Amino acid sequence: MAGETTTPAHTVRSYDQDLRRLRDMVARMGGLAERQVADATTALIRRDTELAAEVVRRDAELDRLEREIEAFCVRLLALRQPMAQDLRLIVGAMKIAHALERIGDYARNAAKRAIVLAEQPPIGSLNGFQRMARLVQENLKGAMDALVHDDATRADEVWASDQSVDEIYNGIFRELLTHMMEDPRNITAATHLLFIAKNLERIGDHATNIAETVHYAVRGDTLPEERPKADSSASAVVRPPGD
Amino acid sequence: MAGETTTPAHTVRSYDQDLRRLRDMVARMGGLAERQVADATTALIRRDTELAAEVVRRDAELDRLEREIEAFCVRLLALRQPMAQDLRLIVGAMKIAHALERIGDYARNAAKRAIVLAEQPPIGSLNGFQRMARLVQENLKGAMDALVHDDATRADEVWASDQSVDEIYNGIFRELLTHMMEDPRNITAATHLLFIAKNLERIGDHATNIAETVHYAVRGDTLPEERPKADSSASAVVRPPGD
Repeated sequence: MAGETTTPAHTVRSYDQDLRRLRDMVARMGGLAERQVADATTALIRRDTELAAEVVRRDAELDRLEREIEAFCVRLLALRQPMAQDLRLIVGAMKIAHALERIGDYARNAAKRAIVLAEQPPIGSLNGFQRMARLVQENLKGAMDALVHDDATRADEVWASDQSVDEIYNGIFRELLTHMMEDPRNITAATHLLFIAKNLERIGDHATNIAETVHYAVRGDTLPEERPKADSSASAVVRPPGD
Repeated sequence: MAGETTTPAHTVRSYDQDLRRLRDMVARMGGLAERQVADATTALIRRDTELAAEVVRRDAELDRLEREIEAFCVRLLALRQPMAQDLRLIVGAMKIAHALERIGDYARNAAKRAIVLAEQPPIGSLNGFQRMARLVQENLKGAMDALVHDDATRADEVWASDQSVDEIYNGIFRELLTHMMEDPRNITAATHLLFIAKNLERIGDHATNIAETVHYAVRGDTLPEERPKADSSASAVVRPPGD
């Protein structure tokens, strides 16, 4: 390593250790965020209010990890004056930690709603939610793997694959509106389910953003501004039956 | 300035200029984000689809500004090796630019929904939306002023004032569910309005986060983890009339 001629070896080694530790911290946070998404979805589907309450409680750990990662990054920036790829990794780690904290918030919000839903009459099938949750978890896992292995190609795959999440979301959106129109007693439950679907869709967006950040950290260039996007629900109109 | 004894004066001056330019860029982005929120709300209330379409178009400018600010910050980190308050300002500027980009996304999404709503029968009063939009704009403006003037006290005021936004949101949520239950023909419009209200609530959260970041950039310490929070809609249950 070029730096070793001017910098004592132990300093370089400890800098490398710092960067490895940073990756580990972010990877650990990513693992916890994945688990929160998985458990919030399981809690919803099984009507398991205890598991949902645990997701709500556990969210504080993600907040703590974000603060810890940010403080560590600021310390690295001040003490190590990193350049090029190291600098991009550190800036990227802060962005990813923030995205994971957001993902945690969406999972916590979904879990809170799952608690209410467990008391409401069931409506329709939750298959769409399960498929959507599985997809966003895969994307999140893919993005985190890309980070851990400095793998921009893996990151690009995740970045390009968010479209099917949006398609499932659009289907759920229309189905829930139809349930609402059929019977007003479905409205409270369907509204909470709408927001849960939106939360999962936002989690998918964040997984895509993480992939984008990993690409930037590894390659130093940015992806095109527009990624494939198929969420058309903001323009959706669903009519009541017989209207 | 102590640095001038070892650093050529023009370098120091140009560093100061860089930091001033950074603040200006973020302030300009903040101004545009405020305008997007204001125009999206006006478009909703006046059923002005042209203005709504303009909000959707203009959002690309916020995305561009975020990229520009981040690239500038990375360059400053690499070239200036900033310490202490300067370092916190630079890290904070990246976080604030990201929050402003998110605010822009919420405003764009609200504008898209305003276009659909202009074709739907009007339901209820939109006063709550106007009050909520005014409050989040005030908070956003306050947070940006605090940044421009290095004013941690102003930032703390904004941080503490988000509660009434949440209260209006809870009221809107219940009102809209009631409209849905009264007449299924309201469901499409009410659903879009629910999401717009949620968007405004999220914009308020981001304004609070910006205030928190300004506090940290100026003072170097962080605010307590829990801020006053009154959004209880995730646990809301509304019953159909006569149920």
